[in-house]
Amino acid sequence: MASISAGFWRSTFNLSRHFPSSLISSRPSFSRARFSRSSAAMDSGDDLRSKFMEFPYVSGSHRALMVDILSTVETRLGSSLESCTLPPDVQQFENSTGSARGSLHLRSGLPSSQIDFVLGGWIHCELPSGEALNITTLSAYLKPSTDAPHFLLDLIQIGPTSLVLILDLTPRKDLILYPDYLKKYYEDTNLDRHRVHIHGLPEAKPYHSPSLYVRAVLSPTAILVSVGAERSVEDVIRDHVWPVAREVLDFWIGSCLCAVGNVGAKERDYLARRDGIIKRTTVEVDLGSSFPRLFGQEVADRVLGVLSGYYGK
Amino acid sequence: MASISAGFWRSTFNLSRHFPSSLISSRPSFSRARFSRSSAAMDSGDDLRSKFMEFPYVSGSHRALMVDILSTVETRLGSSLESCTLPPDVQQFENSTGSARGSLHLRSGLPSSQIDFVLGGWIHCELPSGEALNITTLSAYLKPSTDAPHFLLDLIQIGPTSLVLILDLTPRKDLILYPDYLKKYYEDTNLDRHRVHIHGLPEAKPYHSPSLYVRAVLSPTAILVSVGAERSVEDVIRDHVWPVAREVLDFWIGSCLCAVGNVGAKERDYLARRDGIIKRTTVEVDLGSSFPRLFGQEVADRVLGVLSGYYGK
Repeated sequence: MASISAGFWRSTFNLSRHFPSSLISSRPSFSRARFSRSSAAMDSGDDLRSKFMEFPYVSGSHRALMVDILSTVETRLGSSLESCTLPPDVQQFENSTGSARGSLHLRSGLPSSQIDFVLGGWIHCELPSGEALNITTLSAYLKPSTDAPHFLLDLIQIGPTSLVLILDLTPRKDLILYPDYLKKYYEDTNLDRHRVHIHGLPEAKPYHSPSLYVRAVLSPTAILVSVGAERSVEDVIRDHVWPVAREVLDFWIGSCLCAVGNVGAKERDYLARRDGIIKRTTVEVDLGSSFPRLFGQEVADRVLGVLSGYYGK
Repeated sequence: MASISAGFWRSTFNLSRHFPSSLISSRPSFSRARFSRSSAAMDSGDDLRSKFMEFPYVSGSHRALMVDILSTVETRLGSSLESCTLPPDVQQFENSTGSARGSLHLRSGLPSSQIDFVLGGWIHCELPSGEALNITTLSAYLKPSTDAPHFLLDLIQIGPTSLVLILDLTPRKDLILYPDYLKKYYEDTNLDRHRVHIHGLPEAKPYHSPSLYVRAVLSPTAILVSVGAERSVEDVIRDHVWPVAREVLDFWIGSCLCAVGNVGAKERDYLARRDGIIKRTTVEVDLGSSFPRLFGQEVADRVLGVLSGYYGK
């Protein structure tokens, strides 16, 4: 694999958790030409990373949150990660009409690291209604050498007034067969306080994924809400989602990732088998159902084919 | 074990699913003396069953629903069940002041049946606020000879205007490691339509159990709501909860219980191990935390000690 990138997901902002809104109101200019396949193929790895980190279609606190989260991962975990080795036309892609665009950045963990890989991404799509669909995501998968949960953050925004938030530390084990696991990572850590906080906001309504698999894979402390109505999505992300996402990420990095478990061979096999199902299902069912509709079959096949090498291995 | 009771949970009403409310408005007179330990010890099995089936502290559609559900189980499954062998002072019990009372009726499956046991119960408690807490429940556990889900129905009513409803077919397997199980019992059956219906009622709000274990053990189609406010609990139970509970019970009896799976030895061991944890946790954590507070340690020890023989075996 390639050498470690020194600047993966490097933020052009130096954002604290509680930032003045003036710092995050800027929206970088965005040139569609950057997304053509030939253009992407000529870009260097650093160029592609910078373009990914622009999150060009979201602004304000949504953009600042993602930059902050990804920068934090880079700062604290970067030395454990390879550089992104996705082909340029998988790091940036669009459909034939240019109405849907996406960018992915994937960094595998070093052989000595407990991180399997970290994937950041964004998708922008102009909906027939005239509104914009913007999805930003960070997911981090660990190796079977540790049983600490995976990390998942998804923000799905439709227009300026509607947001779906999914934030979870995804369990690696069946919480019924392994009650000690439930206790260690979810009960003793009081992770549920974040869910209580976000679900208790007057602007938040519980969100039920239409996928029973998604509901089953998440932890009992998962935050799944749709946000809208009374206050703006901008305010809710800034005042509530951002601090909570950072706290959960910090907990995940500090408490989960650094705590090396004594995982025996049998347990490793179990984790590898369960993780394998989770990752394959994510590509086949989750992405596999939406990517062809958004980007057409050819682009979807190209992107998902490459991702399968990481998710399906 | 004893012979099969011919009249377990026999209803004194012949209730259809859509009943005239005049049929269910009667509330039987209730004598406290029936609950004294010495009195209970002298009652015959039929007497105790009849008293259990009175559900003396709930009325209207709540009572009628429970009578209907339990009568349905008796009619369709009674020939597969032993008679209730709980000691009389576990079939009926109360605390020292008489402010909390309960009744349990447990029937084990015959050796030839796939039913492990069926437990019906009710608890009544006068709260310090002056309101009455009434819990009615039916849970049915299956043997490891089938992998069909368990059945769970809980109605927790505080006063006339507040209800918590839990209705679920509880999975026997980890839904991530066994995606075919998720498909067979939850996706292909469209069980989620009932959750969508109940959760969509304007009077219903999602209910999150404070227990992470309870959240984890339930299926992704579980109905967990608190009901109150706009319409009366009475109307919501009659028009929505009752029909849905009957449909889920009928599905469980018809589709799950009657479909004998080819469960191999290894799978049986897995099911037995997972079921064992579920049942032991129910007694130790769920009932074990609430019974001493409601009934005092002596009564709790007596009742839970007997239940442990069924749940912990």
